Amino acid sequence: MLNETLAAIRPLDDDAITAARALQARLTKPAGSLGALETLAVRLAGLAGACPPPIPQPAALAIFAGDHGVHTQGVTPWPQEVTAQMVANFVAGGAVVNAFARQAGVAVTVVDVGVKATLEPSGGLLDRKVRPGTRDLSVEPAMTRDEVLRALVTGMEVADDLVDGGAQALLTGDMGIANTTPAAALIAAFTHADPAAVTGLGTGIDSETHARKVAVVTSAVVGLHAEDPVDILAAVGGLEHAALTGFILRGAARRVPVILDGVIAASAAVAAHALAPASVAAMVAGHRSAEPGATAALGYLELEPLVDLGLRLGEGTGAVLALPIVASAVRVLHEVATFDSAGVAHK
Amino acid sequence: MLNETLAAIRPLDDDAITAARALQARLTKPAGSLGALETLAVRLAGLAGACPPPIPQPAALAIFAGDHGVHTQGVTPWPQEVTAQMVANFVAGGAVVNAFARQAGVAVTVVDVGVKATLEPSGGLLDRKVRPGTRDLSVEPAMTRDEVLRALVTGMEVADDLVDGGAQALLTGDMGIANTTPAAALIAAFTHADPAAVTGLGTGIDSETHARKVAVVTSAVVGLHAEDPVDILAAVGGLEHAALTGFILRGAARRVPVILDGVIAASAAVAAHALAPASVAAMVAGHRSAEPGATAALGYLELEPLVDLGLRLGEGTGAVLALPIVASAVRVLHEVATFDSAGVAHK
Repeated sequence: MLNETLAAIRPLDDDAITAARALQARLTKPAGSLGALETLAVRLAGLAGACPPPIPQPAALAIFAGDHGVHTQGVTPWPQEVTAQMVANFVAGGAVVNAFARQAGVAVTVVDVGVKATLEPSGGLLDRKVRPGTRDLSVEPAMTRDEVLRALVTGMEVADDLVDGGAQALLTGDMGIANTTPAAALIAAFTHADPAAVTGLGTGIDSETHARKVAVVTSAVVGLHAEDPVDILAAVGGLEHAALTGFILRGAARRVPVILDGVIAASAAVAAHALAPASVAAMVAGHRSAEPGATAALGYLELEPLVDLGLRLGEGTGAVLALPIVASAVRVLHEVATFDSAGVAHK
Repeated sequence: MLNETLAAIRPLDDDAITAARALQARLTKPAGSLGALETLAVRLAGLAGACPPPIPQPAALAIFAGDHGVHTQGVTPWPQEVTAQMVANFVAGGAVVNAFARQAGVAVTVVDVGVKATLEPSGGLLDRKVRPGTRDLSVEPAMTRDEVLRALVTGMEVADDLVDGGAQALLTGDMGIANTTPAAALIAAFTHADPAAVTGLGTGIDSETHARKVAVVTSAVVGLHAEDPVDILAAVGGLEHAALTGFILRGAARRVPVILDGVIAASAAVAAHALAPASVAAMVAGHRSAEPGATAALGYLELEPLVDLGLRLGEGTGAVLALPIVASAVRVLHEVATFDSAGVAHK
C-alpha cells in the first residue's frame, strides 16, 4: 500500500493552476488583494486538477494517539496515563479540539495507534494499536521497521476511509505525552537542523527538563546513521508520527488537501516529504505552533502557516482553526462575481 | 445619542475576568496553551460581564459605503462609480465578503451613508445617505460637524438594530473608492504618526500615485489644527469612517465585541478611542491589513490582530475571516471539560 501510495502522488496540475490564476484576475477584487488566500486557492486547484477545486467541506480530523518509551527519561512533567485520559476526553467530546471542531463543523475520528494503556472499546475510537507505546528511543530504536510500516498503513487506511466517506479535506491531530521529543528528533534528522534549535518547551516545561530533552534529542540524532525514511521513523519516531506520515501521503495520493496542525504534524510532513517530495503539494500549514521545530520544518517545506496565535496544544486545534480560512479561500473561486458579470468597472 | 453612548461605555468587569482566568486554569489543556485565544476569551468575559461570555453568534457585518471628494486629486486609479457598483455587488451577494460571510454564517447589512450616485432602492440596502460623497479634504473640510454627527448616529443606530436583532458580535465593513486616503489622514491625526509612514498602496497603486497620496495626506494633517475628535473627522475623514466610529462606540456601549476589519476600521477605531478610551475593550482586531496605517493604529490601541495573511481588500473580509477564531476562543469556556470532570491527571 505504501508503494502504491507513493506512486500515485503527482505534481500539481498546470492547466488547473493556469485556469485558477486567470479566474482570480477576473473576479471583482483588486489583483492580489486576498494575499496568501489567492495563492492557496490556486494551489488547491492544481491539487484537485480542477478549477474551481472542491470547497473543503465536509472536512475530517483524525487524532492519532500513542505513547513513548522516552517518557522514562523525564522529558515532560505530565504523567503518561494522561494520553489515555485525553483519548477518553476526545471520545466524550470534552477537549478543546472537540469544541473547535463543533465550531468549524469538522468530524473527529480518534485512532489508538499505540497508547500504552488498554483502552475501553467505544464507538468513537478506532483500535489500531500497533504496540502499547514505543521503546525508549534514547536507548534503542523506538520501533521496528515492521511496526513503522503498520503505523503508516494505519494512517493511509484512515485517510482512505475518511475520503471515501466524503471528506474534501483531511486535518491532522495527535495525542501522546512526550511526543514533542520524537517530533524534534525527526525534524532534526530530516531537515539537518541543529537538534537544540528544534527542541522546544512542548506544553510547558522548566529549563531543567528542557535541558534533559535537548540532550536526549541531540544524542538520538547524533547516533542516527539511517538514510531510509522508514529507518529514521523507526529509530527516533513515534507511532502517531508514523501514522500521520501515512495519513498525509494518502491524502496527497487522493489529491485532497491535508491541513497540518502543529509540530507533530510538521515532523510527519518532513517524513512524508522524504518519502515523496511531491506530497508537499497537498499540505496546508494550518498554524505556526509555538514549538521552534514546527517553524523549522515548515520553512524547510516552504509552507507558510495560516494562523499564528501562539498555540501549543496539539490535538489538531491549529488545523481546525485554519479550516474556515481554507474554505473561504476556495469559496471565492466558486461564488464571486467577475468584473463583467457584475458590471463593475476596472481601474 | 452620542453623549448617551459615550456615557454608557465602561471598563471591563473585573469579577468576570477573574472568573474566566480561573476557569481557563481548570480546563483540560496545559496552562496558556491556547496562546492569544486565552487572553481574548478572558477579555470578552470582562466585556460581557459574564463568564462564560456569549458565543459571538449570530454575528452581523455592516458595510458602510461612501464616496470621497479627494478622489479628484488622483489618489487612486479606480473610477469613483466603482463604489456604487460594488454596493450593488454586495446586495446581489457577488463580492468576496459575501462568499466569506456565507462561509462563516454572518448576516450582511449594506448601508449607503454617503455614496455619490443615487442607488436603486433594494431590500438589502439601507439608505442612510448623509450627503452624496464628502467634499475634497485637500481643499476644505470634508464634512461639517453636523454631517459627522449624522454619520455617527447612523453607525450607532445600525449597531443598535443589529444587537436588538440578536447579534452577539458586530463586524465592520466598508466600501468607498479613495477611502484609504482619509483613513491615513485620520490615523496620522489621532496617533500623531508620520503621515508618510501611514499612507499605503491601498488596493494597489503605482509609485507616482502613492507620492500624490502621501502629499495629500501630509498637507491635510499638517494643516489640521482641530483638537476635538468630531472636528478631526469633519476635516479629514469620510462618511463611512464616521459611521464606523459610531458603530464601534455603540457596540462598546452595548458590551458586544466589535471585530475590526482593515485600515478603514482602524481609523474609525482610533477616532472611537479619542471619544471614549474605554471603547477599546470591545474591539477585536480581526486581521492585519497590508496597509501600514492599520498596523500603526492597532499598535497605538495595543491590539494584536488574529489573522495576518496580507489581505488588502476591505469590505469586512478580514473581520469575517476572524469570526470563527473568536467564536472558537469563547466556545472553549462553554464546552471544554475540567481536569476534575474528565478525570485527567495534572502535571
